[in-house]
Amino acid sequence: MASSEFRPLDEKSLVEYIKATPRLLDLLGEKLEALTIKEVGDGNLNFVYIVVSASGSVVIKQALPYIRCIGESWPMTKERAYFEALTLKEHGHLCPEHVPEVYHFDRIMSLIAMRYLKPPHIILRKGLIAGIEYPLLAEHMSEYMAKTLFSTSNLYHSTAVHKKAVAEFCGNMELCRLTEQVVFSDPYKVSQYNRWTSPYLDHDAEAIRADNTLKLEVAELKSMFCERAQALIHGDLHTGSIMVTTDSTQVIDPEFAFYGPMGFDIGAFLGNLILAFFAQDGHASEENDRKLYKQWILRTIQDTWNLFENKFTTLWNDNKDGNGEAYLMDIYNNPELQQLVQKKYMTDLFHDTLGFGAAKMIRRIFGVAHVEDFESIADPGKRAYCEHRALEFAKVLMKGRHGFQNINQVVSAIHEIPV
Amino acid sequence: MASSEFRPLDEKSLVEYIKATPRLLDLLGEKLEALTIKEVGDGNLNFVYIVVSASGSVVIKQALPYIRCIGESWPMTKERAYFEALTLKEHGHLCPEHVPEVYHFDRIMSLIAMRYLKPPHIILRKGLIAGIEYPLLAEHMSEYMAKTLFSTSNLYHSTAVHKKAVAEFCGNMELCRLTEQVVFSDPYKVSQYNRWTSPYLDHDAEAIRADNTLKLEVAELKSMFCERAQALIHGDLHTGSIMVTTDSTQVIDPEFAFYGPMGFDIGAFLGNLILAFFAQDGHASEENDRKLYKQWILRTIQDTWNLFENKFTTLWNDNKDGNGEAYLMDIYNNPELQQLVQKKYMTDLFHDTLGFGAAKMIRRIFGVAHVEDFESIADPGKRAYCEHRALEFAKVLMKGRHGFQNINQVVSAIHEIPV
Ligand SMILES: Nc1ncnc2c1ncn2[C@@H]1O[C@H](COP(=O)(O)OP(=O)(O)O)[C@@H](O)[C@H]1O
Ligand SMILES: Nc1ncnc2c1ncn2[C@@H]1O[C@H](COP(=O)(O)OP(=O)(O)O)[C@@H](O)[C@H]1O
Ligand SMILES: [Mg+2]
Ligand SMILES: [Mg+2]
Ligand SMILES: [Mg+2]
Ligand SMILES: [Mg+2]
Ligand SMILES: [Mg+2]
Repeated sequence: MASSEFRPLDEKSLVEYIKATPRLLDLLGEKLEALTIKEVGDGNLNFVYIVVSASGSVVIKQALPYIRCIGESWPMTKERAYFEALTLKEHGHLCPEHVPEVYHFDRIMSLIAMRYLKPPHIILRKGLIAGIEYPLLAEHMSEYMAKTLFSTSNLYHSTAVHKKAVAEFCGNMELCRLTEQVVFSDPYKVSQYNRWTSPYLDHDAEAIRADNTLKLEVAELKSMFCERAQALIHGDLHTGSIMVTTDSTQVIDPEFAFYGPMGFDIGAFLGNLILAFFAQDGHASEENDRKLYKQWILRTIQDTWNLFENKFTTLWNDNKDGNGEAYLMDIYNNPELQQLVQKKYMTDLFHDTLGFGAAKMIRRIFGVAHVEDFESIADPGKRAYCEHRALEFAKVLMKGRHGFQNINQVVSAIHEIPV
Repeated sequence: MASSEFRPLDEKSLVEYIKATPRLLDLLGEKLEALTIKEVGDGNLNFVYIVVSASGSVVIKQALPYIRCIGESWPMTKERAYFEALTLKEHGHLCPEHVPEVYHFDRIMSLIAMRYLKPPHIILRKGLIAGIEYPLLAEHMSEYMAKTLFSTSNLYHSTAVHKKAVAEFCGNMELCRLTEQVVFSDPYKVSQYNRWTSPYLDHDAEAIRADNTLKLEVAELKSMFCERAQALIHGDLHTGSIMVTTDSTQVIDPEFAFYGPMGFDIGAFLGNLILAFFAQDGHASEENDRKLYKQWILRTIQDTWNLFENKFTTLWNDNKDGNGEAYLMDIYNNPELQQLVQKKYMTDLFHDTLGFGAAKMIRRIFGVAHVEDFESIADPGKRAYCEHRALEFAKVLMKGRHGFQNINQVVSAIHEIPV
């Protein structure tokens, strides 16, 4: 149905919407008697419905003009659905293996219909809490990040294409602003929505607000986030935006997408894996001490960066005679120079990644939105212990990021955080 | 006259255009008998007419859809006039003392009517070649740069305002691309339009094309130019875009304007002063050895940066409770931290400035567009000597920029270039 104005849907009105939308009828079949509709949005920003009929299935996501988990008191443009759909399509085109197909987008209704990622797909964060290993995770996520980031950067496309896309995504300003606030600002000041495991972390919260060095670093990262249009980034690539099975890895929810620094995506993913690592002690039990699982997480962190670096560089080499204008072949025309240039590029990106990763960790401990990895640790003392160690490491990472030469050194530094 | 389609004007058709344009008749008076029209565009990109009547005067600038000094074989969007007019207005609003007023803009005709900067105004570059001191130049240019750059950055305006403006200026892509090519690419490769004082500099030209370290640095600068939307920069702030008298300093010709790195503007101005410095030995004569004048240029370089740093920081302090979202007062809430943050910001900007300044110098020696400072040295051996020393210094600057702590050290390094 080509709605002429926005209406928030519910389980009931969604049926009417489906009946009036040929593309959805195609997918679900004309007979809609056996239709089941379940709202599964985990309460963050939007409403998500799983729709299953006798002959098909679809997920319908609708953005309302406010932030769901806060309520109408925190308005937020529903145009975010437009940028989410655009990015799902663009990233899906670049990496169809790891992005669900978009079947239908209705801009007026801020509504996306996409492939239903069926069980046993679960949100990766839940898998990490449950202690499940995903042997292909590093391979898949490095593939997704390398393909989407490389192919939307100046390394791959021309200035003309780049500037046009940058301009379009400037329209997703409200979502950028939300990130600026909740990631780069709120944790470093007194803010209405901040919270932490009190009283255990009261001193830590205060220390962050008095840490000049940390604030200096976070300012640099914030500027980079605001100013640097390096690639079309997902913008919210934590472990809650990834659905997995043992064989499949699917990236959802790119409503924060814009042209920003690549390190913000890679850092989000790695930072959230590090949070998952530090949360494991809170999930350990007599039956399962999680020791082996912690090793798997660390291996996944290492493999992700190393595979990413490899895949990204391979894409660069494979496309060095393409449309990208950043490094013209006539200038970067000898193997030694090419190596030098790539080494510098990857090292800078690595340091950005560590900085942004650290910022994403800190905000999950002191900001408005926490992570289930810690929240599900019932004993607040135990939870605070895990969070405190994650915080200590995040500070090391943010302040010392330029000193790390490779991901192995990062993992060694994790081991050095006092128990 | 609201033209419905673009027509290139000449001295004759311009009269008809004026007669049909109320705003211009207002300025020039209804009696147009005594009208004189003179085309004075110095042959770079556009056509510039000085129009004087019995009761008024105006400068009319028209962009044609190609680069004037190359010809129709190098097409270039005439929409550049739109971005020039927009920037003249925006920068003029922020710093009316140093930007000519725009009286009229006709987008279809790519035509700007602006204040005529009357004699004794001359192009600064010509004044520098003639050995004329401008005692207020550093004061005025530092004022212009501080006001325009600060007030179009995230330090002053909100993310909402910033992203909207960034998006608009992405439209000036073709001009950005031209800079990417002629400043950051062509001098480092074999290129059709490159030229230099041959055979004297043949070896230098070759050395640049084989200098891996230099190419590594220029790649970083190019990326920053392409990706970093720090402020609305002029984009072509060499000494040929400034008109001066002893009392007045006026910045014209911002057709390359876009949201880019501030250091590109400051570097353009300082880099061109350094070129002027190295050219002086070519202009020395028995009557005037130019020794004192060279000292004045170096003082102006120092004063410009130091005054800029001071004015920029003062603007920052004066506006710290304003709309700027980069450094929120609730976070950067103590004097020590504020100092730390500003020191870091200014140091980074200083290093960017030196890098971009060096790039602008190199391209004027080996690229398509040279500068009159050197071109007016008739003896090619003498000219090559001056250019070679400028080049040597530019290489020091680009490769070693992170080692300079202040502008005095830069001036000392100029003195160390072998004669
Ligand atoms: N394509 C899908 N297939 C299956 N479940 C999905 C799909 N998209 C979203 N979900 C479920 O809905 C939840 C919320 O979706 P998400 O896109 O992350 O919304 P929000 O923007 O509100 O965070 C996810 O955590 C997941 O459980
Ligand atoms: N407002 C003005 N007043 C007086 N002369 C001007 C004015 N604008 C431009 N000119 C003259 O025209 C020349 C070319 O103008 P400019 O804007 O630099 O054009 P281009 O974009 O082709 O370089 C300048 O060098 C200067 O001599
Ligand atoms: Mg989500
Ligand atoms: Mg979301
Ligand atoms: Mg000019
Ligand atoms: Mg010009
Ligand atoms: Mg620097």
